[in-house]
Amino acid sequence: MSQPLRVGMVGYAFMGAAHSQAWRTVNHVYDLPMPVRMQVVSGRSAAAVAAAADRLGWSESTDDWRTLLARDDVDLIDICAPGDVHAEIAIEALAAGKHVLCEKPLANSVAEARKMVAAADAARDSGVRAMCGFNYRRVPAVALMRQMVAAGRLGTIRHVRACYLQDWIVDPQFPLVWRLRREVAGSGALGDIGAHIVDLTQFLTGLRVTSVSALTQTFVRSRPLPDSPGQGDVTVDDAALFLARLGDGVVASYEASRFATGRKNALRVEINGSLGTLVFDFERMNELAFYDGSRPAGEQGFSRILVTEPSHPYLAAWWPPGHLIGYEHTFVHQAHDLVQAIAAGADPAPSFADALQVQLVLDAVSRSAETSSWTTVESAEEV
Amino acid sequence: MSQPLRVGMVGYAFMGAAHSQAWRTVNHVYDLPMPVRMQVVSGRSAAAVAAAADRLGWSESTDDWRTLLARDDVDLIDICAPGDVHAEIAIEALAAGKHVLCEKPLANSVAEARKMVAAADAARDSGVRAMCGFNYRRVPAVALMRQMVAAGRLGTIRHVRACYLQDWIVDPQFPLVWRLRREVAGSGALGDIGAHIVDLTQFLTGLRVTSVSALTQTFVRSRPLPDSPGQGDVTVDDAALFLARLGDGVVASYEASRFATGRKNALRVEINGSLGTLVFDFERMNELAFYDGSRPAGEQGFSRILVTEPSHPYLAAWWPPGHLIGYEHTFVHQAHDLVQAIAAGADPAPSFADALQVQLVLDAVSRSAETSSWTTVESAEEV
Amino acid sequence: MSQPLRVGMVGYAFMGAAHSQAWRTVNHVYDLPMPVRMQVVSGRSAAAVAAAADRLGWSESTDDWRTLLARDDVDLIDICAPGDVHAEIAIEALAAGKHVLCEKPLANSVAEARKMVAAADAARDSGVRAMCGFNYRRVPAVALMRQMVAAGRLGTIRHVRACYLQDWIVDPQFPLVWRLRREVAGSGALGDIGAHIVDLTQFLTGLRVTSVSALTQTFVRSRPLPDSPGQGDVTVDDAALFLARLGDGVVASYEASRFATGRKNALRVEINGSLGTLVFDFERMNELAFYDGSRPAGEQGFSRILVTEPSHPYLAAWWPPGHLIGYEHTFVHQAHDLVQAIAAGADPAPSFADALQVQLVLDAVSRSAETSSWTTVESAEEV
Amino acid sequence: MSQPLRVGMVGYAFMGAAHSQAWRTVNHVYDLPMPVRMQVVSGRSAAAVAAAADRLGWSESTDDWRTLLARDDVDLIDICAPGDVHAEIAIEALAAGKHVLCEKPLANSVAEARKMVAAADAARDSGVRAMCGFNYRRVPAVALMRQMVAAGRLGTIRHVRACYLQDWIVDPQFPLVWRLRREVAGSGALGDIGAHIVDLTQFLTGLRVTSVSALTQTFVRSRPLPDSPGQGDVTVDDAALFLARLGDGVVASYEASRFATGRKNALRVEINGSLGTLVFDFERMNELAFYDGSRPAGEQGFSRILVTEPSHPYLAAWWPPGHLIGYEHTFVHQAHDLVQAIAAGADPAPSFADALQVQLVLDAVSRSAETSSWTTVESAEEV
Repeated sequence: MSQPLRVGMVGYAFMGAAHSQAWRTVNHVYDLPMPVRMQVVSGRSAAAVAAAADRLGWSESTDDWRTLLARDDVDLIDICAPGDVHAEIAIEALAAGKHVLCEKPLANSVAEARKMVAAADAARDSGVRAMCGFNYRRVPAVALMRQMVAAGRLGTIRHVRACYLQDWIVDPQFPLVWRLRREVAGSGALGDIGAHIVDLTQFLTGLRVTSVSALTQTFVRSRPLPDSPGQGDVTVDDAALFLARLGDGVVASYEASRFATGRKNALRVEINGSLGTLVFDFERMNELAFYDGSRPAGEQGFSRILVTEPSHPYLAAWWPPGHLIGYEHTFVHQAHDLVQAIAAGADPAPSFADALQVQLVLDAVSRSAETSSWTTVESAEEV
Repeated sequence: MSQPLRVGMVGYAFMGAAHSQAWRTVNHVYDLPMPVRMQVVSGRSAAAVAAAADRLGWSESTDDWRTLLARDDVDLIDICAPGDVHAEIAIEALAAGKHVLCEKPLANSVAEARKMVAAADAARDSGVRAMCGFNYRRVPAVALMRQMVAAGRLGTIRHVRACYLQDWIVDPQFPLVWRLRREVAGSGALGDIGAHIVDLTQFLTGLRVTSVSALTQTFVRSRPLPDSPGQGDVTVDDAALFLARLGDGVVASYEASRFATGRKNALRVEINGSLGTLVFDFERMNELAFYDGSRPAGEQGFSRILVTEPSHPYLAAWWPPGHLIGYEHTFVHQAHDLVQAIAAGADPAPSFADALQVQLVLDAVSRSAETSSWTTVESAEEV
Repeated sequence: MSQPLRVGMVGYAFMGAAHSQAWRTVNHVYDLPMPVRMQVVSGRSAAAVAAAADRLGWSESTDDWRTLLARDDVDLIDICAPGDVHAEIAIEALAAGKHVLCEKPLANSVAEARKMVAAADAARDSGVRAMCGFNYRRVPAVALMRQMVAAGRLGTIRHVRACYLQDWIVDPQFPLVWRLRREVAGSGALGDIGAHIVDLTQFLTGLRVTSVSALTQTFVRSRPLPDSPGQGDVTVDDAALFLARLGDGVVASYEASRFATGRKNALRVEINGSLGTLVFDFERMNELAFYDGSRPAGEQGFSRILVTEPSHPYLAAWWPPGHLIGYEHTFVHQAHDLVQAIAAGADPAPSFADALQVQLVLDAVSRSAETSSWTTVESAEEV
Repeated sequence: MSQPLRVGMVGYAFMGAAHSQAWRTVNHVYDLPMPVRMQVVSGRSAAAVAAAADRLGWSESTDDWRTLLARDDVDLIDICAPGDVHAEIAIEALAAGKHVLCEKPLANSVAEARKMVAAADAARDSGVRAMCGFNYRRVPAVALMRQMVAAGRLGTIRHVRACYLQDWIVDPQFPLVWRLRREVAGSGALGDIGAHIVDLTQFLTGLRVTSVSALTQTFVRSRPLPDSPGQGDVTVDDAALFLARLGDGVVASYEASRFATGRKNALRVEINGSLGTLVFDFERMNELAFYDGSRPAGEQGFSRILVTEPSHPYLAAWWPPGHLIGYEHTFVHQAHDLVQAIAAGADPAPSFADALQVQLVLDAVSRSAETSSWTTVESAEEV
């Protein structure tokens, strides 16, 4: 029997639930080289985390994440805690020889992210792997889109158009939750959802965002406190918009907002190239639209590819054509790819360096919005 | 200067207005071999038809359609009156040596329609042309669909799925207009809109409906009289549904209804073949959906062809790509094709015989609904 | 700790995999009154079922389903085997005091189905529950649709339009698998997918199909044998179409086909009522279209409800709005509802009698197609 | 009989054809207070303009536009010539006491546009009217959108998202037509199509664009000359993107491109407000999407309003519900509104000042793109 991969997870809220569903499922859907064991979950409250362990399917629980690093029976640390603690946990875990899967955004600051990249680089030499959890790369339609771009189906890329629109805080009476406080969340729509479209567009095009001009906006500046009477200040952006240049001659627009009434999880990317166009919208995540400019004149049009065929990425293991999959499957695919990489002694993607590159874009966006000027994005590879 | 084609129109209500818009426009959009002249319009009330002539752009008006047949300066009779007078006018007009364009349905009964076909056959020998106005054949997307089917892009046809759904009499207080009275309208949804989908599907496939099993339904059996107090009986069908066989091994379903709440003019046809599928919906009349089963695996999907290119049927004369056309354009295209045929000494399509074939299907549907049994459709070509 | 519900499953192919995913997951997503245990799975080949047990998460396996009935540690028999063995297993299981979840179609014949209903009726007195697995009832959008119809949002129902279209055997070289052989599958598209739309439309409207006029078609009559050289006869329908009447004055059309090129799993239902219309399409299973005729004039239109809100059926336990779910979730919801019913001592729906009613419709359809005549559907409640 | 309005048109290419179709049609569709007469058309080549007059339905033609101003039997000058001659013709026409309809963009420079506004202001005192032809305001769905925004259906506006995407010069071998040369066209995508979305969003929101950050891009810098061998330089933008602020606290993004492969005439505007969202796409110009946040929880969704009802703007004069209209109808509506305003002695909209305001935005965009900095937009009302 092959060596199992024993997982310890930190955090058990929304992301923890999604990751748990993936760890519970991945063994049963894919034929993995290493069977996954859900060893232990940690959280701040011993009682709460114990209940969560039971509900989510973890064998044990603890209120001290550091104990996970000390255990011999934990091979991988899966970090689902808020962004302000990512750096500390990841760096210590890598130093302890544990593989790390860290939710996005990698960190709340570029400085932290750089340290995490250094830690990952150091650990790599001892065969320890680090991955950042940009799960949307693992939507089959997105993976297919990447394949098609990489195969040259779009020709020379001209335009990138990306937005991530939600509406969950449109109501001014929605309370001041942690995601609306800079000291915990780092930023608002920008880091939470803008990060995804930055990562996705860099992934899909194979290009880097090199400069940006941005604006950010906080529409509702004061909200009810969640746990006590009174109001508090919103200290993050409700929306962030930016223009960008990628590589040589590609122009792009980005928008992340939590105030787009009616848009629930509208992560959309359109790429126009000299030969064709591809369009993805997460609210119809099982579809990919493709305009193939090489089709016969008179028959050209946007094709709605229902990305549910066994020949499509990740799908041979699931259901017959036309039987849709959902959001959580992206985490199963992520787990699959990570386990495969670890077993193969290969680096999983996105790496911490990829995630740092996203962070550098977000940082440039913030500075551009503050200074109202075009701002150059540093490269993760420059020191 | 080429010989003009001088038109006399009978009727000036909804269809008369649509035909007038076409006659006014066709000269200015297409380069016709015969310029069109809008000579005279007839109607029952002298005052009303005079006002209509002025509004719709006819040079003269009359309250006696027979005077049109007597005039030397009228070449074509365009019949837009209700179905119960089609036969009389068309037969006399053809006998008088006038070309005839007759709105659908050709007649209110098969017997009348057969006489009209005989009249058209007789007149053909003297170079007189007859056409029935199934305008939806002239939607560019429909014409393109026919081209693609005829070119074999669907392979062997398996399924036809057609419906024509409206909702304008859902309200039980909607009055008992002439279209709801059998003695004037002949039938209800069946003849009014069902006729269109029968014609279209026979046109698109090149096949005949050979047998049917039908049901008809009148949901609201009594309605307010339009011009006086009190209620009257609805004597036509509100909806007609039927299964059918076409040609050898094609199965089909048809539905015509005025009770499909929310569907305003949803004329839809889907044809599935061994190699692909085509789908049309009049509510998006500038689009045609095409599933091409010969595309590479993994890239197959329904393409939304925006049928607005100069290479598409009828469109080189109109606007640039992406600039839509509307309902009335189908009548301009019909006028164009009719004038071209007359000038070329050729028979326009659909012929009266084509329209009789539609009538024979409708007749079989009515009989099937009455007898609750599968009913064979006669062929127009059999005596 | 509450009493667990220990499951024994028969069969482990497509449906077995889907049910296993549900049994693995339901405990972790919903707070169930009885925790589920995946005790044992049975199959014909000891080696194959052992491998399947391992892959799908069952504690044990066996090659004799009868041993499941004899075990004290099995409370529920989940029947995922082909239709020809449903009756035998279900009847014996119920007699042995086991709850039964039986995949659809309930049986391959009305006679068998009647016996199963009798067995379920007999077992009910001892608190033993029986449910048939029409999983599509548990799509949240479908459950919402039922709520809205039941709340009268559509007013008086006029039209039902249902189809279930697939295309997996369009290629004549696709082999003669068991689903194309009458002796195993009972029927073709009719029983496999037509059964779903019959059940769904009866469920959604609360009405019974009372009479039908049908046609069936086998387009490709001979296919390569799957496991040996040569060809064999296709003995089931490739497509089945029928008109129907439901309750008093509702007219309907149904179509099930495996030859609708490009349609992968297009289970579609549209219901038109005097006040509005609802439309569902499984290929966009997270959406429900609603036309509300009571909206202000000028603002009426089909709304695309993204059925991913916590207030929607089943969804509070899953992800935030706009984060889609997939096909397999319908089985989790089914498991949830079944466990709740068992714990509450209530009858789950759909009952075996509901499933018999579907069977009676399918039987009438078959007879109608054979005799080319309108055929009355028996009621399950009549003897 | 009422006084006619006698039109003289300058130019007869694409826009001239569209305006001619409107002038030919408007009398016959709407009941106008002043009947329209198509008096004379002017162009540079006497022979060509004579042919155009015949084809487009003008009574006379001339090769000198100044003769139009001298004639007593011309009341209105309709300017459809390229932008570099707008100012001269409009100013002289207004001075000659002729009403003026001037195609957009009003002029090729702000300086010219300011002079035109001054000329219009001076002429207004003598009852002479001036209007700029932003025809897209007269799409019924756009007019409905304006009504709904003005009625407060969106609440406080938060976001505007506008693009106008075409693809007609994606091919590098497409020739260097006049629209790609700055000296004639003024700018590229920005002035040609960007102007429309600037006008529309200001019209729809009732707000002004106050500052912008822009980039422009020319993807293909050299193209074949249209009338001779060799290549020439493209001196305009292929694409222009900008972020903007409108009024107080509204953030916006704009994009105009001729390189969006597959997008033919995708003029799209989305407006998010605190209570709802409206979305328009010209490629489906008969539809308007509305998300009404005040609908009951669980039933919210984007409604596709089919804007073809008699209660919708402009449509009572056209066809029954569900019978679509096209691009050219916007010009008929524009003609209708202009004639109504002239007859009523009222100022038509958009005024030259409105068009100057658009020009000022385009000017700020150009300067922003050149200087890579946020740029304030002047107000037309400031001197």
